[in-house]
Amino acid sequence: MAEQSNAVARLDRRGDHHQAPPYYLPAADEVALFEQCHHNKLAVMLKGPTGCGKTRFVEHMAWRLRRPLITISCHDDLSASDLIGRFLIRHDGTVWQDGPLTTAVRSGAICYLDEVVEARQDTIVVLHPLTDYRRQLPIDKTGEIIDAAPGFQLVVSYNPGYQRMLKDLKPSTRQRFVALDFDFPPPDREAQIVAQESGVPDTTARALVELAHKLRALRDRGLAEAPSTRLLVATAHLAARGIPVKRACQVALVSPLSDDASLLAAMNDLVELTFP
Amino acid sequence: MAEQSNAVARLDRRGDHHQAPPYYLPAADEVALFEQCHHNKLAVMLKGPTGCGKTRFVEHMAWRLRRPLITISCHDDLSASDLIGRFLIRHDGTVWQDGPLTTAVRSGAICYLDEVVEARQDTIVVLHPLTDYRRQLPIDKTGEIIDAAPGFQLVVSYNPGYQRMLKDLKPSTRQRFVALDFDFPPPDREAQIVAQESGVPDTTARALVELAHKLRALRDRGLAEAPSTRLLVATAHLAARGIPVKRACQVALVSPLSDDASLLAAMNDLVELTFP
Amino acid sequence: MAEQSNAVARLDRRGDHHQAPPYYLPAADEVALFEQCHHNKLAVMLKGPTGCGKTRFVEHMAWRLRRPLITISCHDDLSASDLIGRFLIRHDGTVWQDGPLTTAVRSGAICYLDEVVEARQDTIVVLHPLTDYRRQLPIDKTGEIIDAAPGFQLVVSYNPGYQRMLKDLKPSTRQRFVALDFDFPPPDREAQIVAQESGVPDTTARALVELAHKLRALRDRGLAEAPSTRLLVATAHLAARGIPVKRACQVALVSPLSDDASLLAAMNDLVELTFP
Amino acid sequence: MAEQSNAVARLDRRGDHHQAPPYYLPAADEVALFEQCHHNKLAVMLKGPTGCGKTRFVEHMAWRLRRPLITISCHDDLSASDLIGRFLIRHDGTVWQDGPLTTAVRSGAICYLDEVVEARQDTIVVLHPLTDYRRQLPIDKTGEIIDAAPGFQLVVSYNPGYQRMLKDLKPSTRQRFVALDFDFPPPDREAQIVAQESGVPDTTARALVELAHKLRALRDRGLAEAPSTRLLVATAHLAARGIPVKRACQVALVSPLSDDASLLAAMNDLVELTFP
Amino acid sequence: MAEQSNAVARLDRRGDHHQAPPYYLPAADEVALFEQCHHNKLAVMLKGPTGCGKTRFVEHMAWRLRRPLITISCHDDLSASDLIGRFLIRHDGTVWQDGPLTTAVRSGAICYLDEVVEARQDTIVVLHPLTDYRRQLPIDKTGEIIDAAPGFQLVVSYNPGYQRMLKDLKPSTRQRFVALDFDFPPPDREAQIVAQESGVPDTTARALVELAHKLRALRDRGLAEAPSTRLLVATAHLAARGIPVKRACQVALVSPLSDDASLLAAMNDLVELTFP
Amino acid sequence: MAEQSNAVARLDRRGDHHQAPPYYLPAADEVALFEQCHHNKLAVMLKGPTGCGKTRFVEHMAWRLRRPLITISCHDDLSASDLIGRFLIRHDGTVWQDGPLTTAVRSGAICYLDEVVEARQDTIVVLHPLTDYRRQLPIDKTGEIIDAAPGFQLVVSYNPGYQRMLKDLKPSTRQRFVALDFDFPPPDREAQIVAQESGVPDTTARALVELAHKLRALRDRGLAEAPSTRLLVATAHLAARGIPVKRACQVALVSPLSDDASLLAAMNDLVELTFP
Repeated sequence: MAEQSNAVARLDRRGDHHQAPPYYLPAADEVALFEQCHHNKLAVMLKGPTGCGKTRFVEHMAWRLRRPLITISCHDDLSASDLIGRFLIRHDGTVWQDGPLTTAVRSGAICYLDEVVEARQDTIVVLHPLTDYRRQLPIDKTGEIIDAAPGFQLVVSYNPGYQRMLKDLKPSTRQRFVALDFDFPPPDREAQIVAQESGVPDTTARALVELAHKLRALRDRGLAEAPSTRLLVATAHLAARGIPVKRACQVALVSPLSDDASLLAAMNDLVELTFP
Repeated sequence: MAEQSNAVARLDRRGDHHQAPPYYLPAADEVALFEQCHHNKLAVMLKGPTGCGKTRFVEHMAWRLRRPLITISCHDDLSASDLIGRFLIRHDGTVWQDGPLTTAVRSGAICYLDEVVEARQDTIVVLHPLTDYRRQLPIDKTGEIIDAAPGFQLVVSYNPGYQRMLKDLKPSTRQRFVALDFDFPPPDREAQIVAQESGVPDTTARALVELAHKLRALRDRGLAEAPSTRLLVATAHLAARGIPVKRACQVALVSPLSDDASLLAAMNDLVELTFP
Repeated sequence: MAEQSNAVARLDRRGDHHQAPPYYLPAADEVALFEQCHHNKLAVMLKGPTGCGKTRFVEHMAWRLRRPLITISCHDDLSASDLIGRFLIRHDGTVWQDGPLTTAVRSGAICYLDEVVEARQDTIVVLHPLTDYRRQLPIDKTGEIIDAAPGFQLVVSYNPGYQRMLKDLKPSTRQRFVALDFDFPPPDREAQIVAQESGVPDTTARALVELAHKLRALRDRGLAEAPSTRLLVATAHLAARGIPVKRACQVALVSPLSDDASLLAAMNDLVELTFP
Repeated sequence: MAEQSNAVARLDRRGDHHQAPPYYLPAADEVALFEQCHHNKLAVMLKGPTGCGKTRFVEHMAWRLRRPLITISCHDDLSASDLIGRFLIRHDGTVWQDGPLTTAVRSGAICYLDEVVEARQDTIVVLHPLTDYRRQLPIDKTGEIIDAAPGFQLVVSYNPGYQRMLKDLKPSTRQRFVALDFDFPPPDREAQIVAQESGVPDTTARALVELAHKLRALRDRGLAEAPSTRLLVATAHLAARGIPVKRACQVALVSPLSDDASLLAAMNDLVELTFP
Repeated sequence: MAEQSNAVARLDRRGDHHQAPPYYLPAADEVALFEQCHHNKLAVMLKGPTGCGKTRFVEHMAWRLRRPLITISCHDDLSASDLIGRFLIRHDGTVWQDGPLTTAVRSGAICYLDEVVEARQDTIVVLHPLTDYRRQLPIDKTGEIIDAAPGFQLVVSYNPGYQRMLKDLKPSTRQRFVALDFDFPPPDREAQIVAQESGVPDTTARALVELAHKLRALRDRGLAEAPSTRLLVATAHLAARGIPVKRACQVALVSPLSDDASLLAAMNDLVELTFP
Repeated sequence: MAEQSNAVARLDRRGDHHQAPPYYLPAADEVALFEQCHHNKLAVMLKGPTGCGKTRFVEHMAWRLRRPLITISCHDDLSASDLIGRFLIRHDGTVWQDGPLTTAVRSGAICYLDEVVEARQDTIVVLHPLTDYRRQLPIDKTGEIIDAAPGFQLVVSYNPGYQRMLKDLKPSTRQRFVALDFDFPPPDREAQIVAQESGVPDTTARALVELAHKLRALRDRGLAEAPSTRLLVATAHLAARGIPVKRACQVALVSPLSDDASLLAAMNDLVELTFP
């Protein structure tokens, strides 16, 4: 049991509840909805674009609910074994090592699978018995079935705006989650975040947010994804350290978004308009 | 033999027959049909949409027939070894470990392969000699052939409504099963389930079921899969805990079903109509 | 040598020749042809639809020729090592373990590869030197070449009616077999089998066979494969245990064959016509 | 060295030169050409259809040249390690085990790669330094370079009539071989072979050869490959054991060649014409 | 800790800060921008064609910022384990070995991923938590989460001009970097570099740069990539050692760029024009 | 160090500089160009058709420059580990074994990668840091970075005339080499080589070369690759041993080049014309 709590402590960097809560400004009723899902043992899917605050929200909720948080970044090659665990061959025998999902299930942690749609089907399917009334994790390799400890909750994130070839969540998976929609914050709040995190004056922050809104409108003209709040903060950081704001916009806001010459020109024109 | 029954006990969470039976309200003659299949040693295929109660039915039948139940969720990477077993290398030698199918065959359990069509062909083909008059499981790796213990029965589930690319059950596999068709329960019974599991008043439960029927009609307009009874119960749970029912429908019933803006709008209109 | 005969006994469930012969009613001259192939050391290919009695025929012939029978179900992932054998790493060294084909070659058994076309090319190619005048099995991993013991015979089955993408037997493989064609038994004999195996009255058995012939005619309208005698027997089993015969036809004869609504309707109409 | 000759003896079943020579009736100057290639250290490619005697020819030449013969059947999954050798992990350490090609190179054997085009490119490329003036086999895994012993010769077979998707020998590989063309024997000689190997009377043998010529003409109408002399011998074997010759033609000559109904009908008509 | 600094010293060949700085002539404000990114803990993406000085720039900045530099060349088969580390099985047990990224994270080095777009998605996704406010590297296999040491910075390079099939950086990855654009140096500076590195006279260097500009204009006519400064230096090296400059251009500047006969002719015409 | 020179000696069969130089007749200034590249530490790419003498040229240059030569035949499955080295598990622990590239880098050998375009990208990319000013080989698995010893040079060969699907050298790789173009020798010199290596009279050798020129002209009519000097020498060898020259042309010059009936007829017509 001491070993179990060590495993959680090692995986959960937000676990020290004496710390200040992770900064998060609620947009609507998402905090109440998440709390009800938690108490009703319902899994949650956070839908929204890159960099709009989904990860922060989960960290905030974990702090608020006093639960450890275990985060897993999903990708093409994430196998079920990476989640559940594996046998390690050691010179003195074979030992079983729990994966991060198993640790979360045993310890009643919130388990957050970031960009879940990137994972392979065999990885996603192991989540199924954890998301219905069974709340069980079968471990085929040891023949064990673990009942989720009280407090365990599965949370996944998902970016519906980014088109993937062939990859999608199966309907039978989607129906296992309550879905909370996220978006970029409204202009005033986004400007407040930019100013607070970077130290630029409010006028600059507001101008950057205004620019971001114009750039996001280019999505219809072929921009693969809208610039995130994170990009605005990076731009503001450079501006706050003496880089001319127009130059900061070019390197931190425009150039990362595309390699297409006409799109880049259109975006730089908008920079010019905003910071003449 | 003690080891064998331990393995079953470890894999079967429904094995305690002193417990109350798993809640299941029969729709037609499926209980009698299943019992006759069991007594005639015929394998059964449960056909029907996600979340319409197939898993519950199997659990109920296992309880009713006093058989242990071993459930396996199928997926793309489920190998024959995952079902049958493998050699484990240990520091003191190599030991054979039965997989869940082998455990079921040896102990006379009901073995339930959920979403069998997701499994690879090599996994499905090992089921063949278990589903004809032979009732045998050959284990190539040990050179052993196991006769199924009395009471062993193979059950698979299959969702014919969900289109898969390239994947389908081969006719030579299909012909090895008696097929029982499942569908969502009729309105009255579905409302009864929703009210009983969530605690919402009957009027709310009936309204939710009415809404579900309207949403299911959207399948012709591109909805990949109809909302399940499970989604209705999740929605009702949130409503029972103080979330406004319209909001609960948005996050637990509508948003999980699609990312398509026009489909989402159509679904939210139906919510508005039902809970004005 | 004692070890060898143990391996055969473990793999061959038909090996006890004091038992009654496996039930098989010859259709034409297939028994005589098979016997001549056996005595001339010619490999045999059984061509025919699923469930028409190919496996039973091989079991019958093995009993008749007093040869052990080793059966291997082929599939996509069946590797040459699965057939031939492999080195097992044990704590006290590495030992070679014969695969089922090697056991058959050493012991002069009949080796039956069911649905051979499903296997990979590298698996099929190992059969080549066993099917010409050499009658040898080279084992690359041990550098051994085994001469087939007297009585060894290779038999494969193959369903020409089932279309596979890209997969087919190479002409250089096909030319290594004498091909015996199988089909469903003629009506009278099929009715006799159905009645004898299930216990239904002769009139019911004949009506079921009549229905099967009508259903088999639907293959031109898109039915992937004709209903087998095995399906008729399953249907009759249910009818013999009190399930109404029309309902038994629906779950055991019609529903397993297709998910297509119009095909299912057409088939159920035929059931209605046969059992009004 | 004793170990080396043991390895060759184990792999070479034609190595006992006190035995009678393998039966082979030369068609043209292929024996002289092969001998000159052998003495000039030139690799040889045998081009021709399935079952026309390529393997027998190599066995005959090995006997004639007093060289051991090592035969390797190529296929999709034949890896370079299968040819060259591998490290085996044993409980008392790791030992290198020569593959059949390495054994041939060290011992000056004739190494015959049957159906070489089926092998993977990485397998074929290891042959390159053995087929030019270098006559060396580099073994990457041990860092060794072996000079071919005197008498070593590489022989490959290749069926140009069988169409493969995407697979072909690279020009840089083809140019490393002298190519000897093989075909079915002329009618008189083919009838002589059929009679001698099966024991049927000369008139039957000649009729079978006449039939084969008509069947081979069907290649323009879609027959994937012409019936081989081997098929004729199998047919004759059955006829010699009492199976009516027409029936023997159906099961051993026609049915193995195709599953196409119209081709089968056309072929059976030709059987009818030949044996009315 | 001593072990850690040994690992860095072994991986970082620019770590000796008593050495002269790597030669780098700034083109614009890239040095100041990089320094601000470094101080604001922002990851940097260097965009530009092959051979225009991106690698040199990173080496220069590492020297300037007094940080160790660890360089990783990305490719198709670079796995997450190659970056993060793996367990090594040794005869006396299993030990964990940090990969180069982990070493950089622990030691506060600059980690430079050259041609990052070539790597697999699972490799790229491990960079995500290092590039936002978390600055953490989770190591799934040990269950450890490492906070990046002060001074750690992630730098990637990327050639937007080279078209790749199917491969591209995901928007959610791109948005994690500040992007600095690189291009070939202006003519005067490029001539200065060519003369200084090769020893050819200034007139020759200027003529070579003039030729390169004409060749780069051929990109619209199908040249896959523009000749780099590196190619000019190689050409000049040969010219400085007595190879006629026209011949040096043919072998070191023209022939490496294409196999297309008409493109080669067009390029050789330009050589002729420049060095008549 | 003694171990290192043993490794080189084992891999380099041309290392004995007391031997006569490998026979090579220069075509133009390729010897001088190669020497200058060697002294300027420039990597070299040899472009030209199969069998035109590229391998001989490298062997000659290694002898001339008194460098050991290590040759690696590239293919689809050549992995980076095959070049660089791997850990071998032995019963007494794990030892690192240098691959051939690492041996070349450590010992200052010429490393020749034959048909480099056949290798996988991950294999090619490890060459990059060896081909610019760094001259380093990073070994990820040991965390070591090796500086190339003086005299180390990378040489690759490449056949631009042979069309590969999807495979090509990336521009960023091509730009790392000086390219020397090779072609078949001019008629007089080719005849001289044929006569000298085979022993046929000069008139026969000249006639064979004349025939080869006519055959090479067929490349526009679909011949995949021109007949090499190597094929001419093989043909001449057979002619010198008594095979009629026309027959020798058929088996050693025409038949290896194609399976296409009309191309074979056209080529045999040319043989007939040359040797009536």
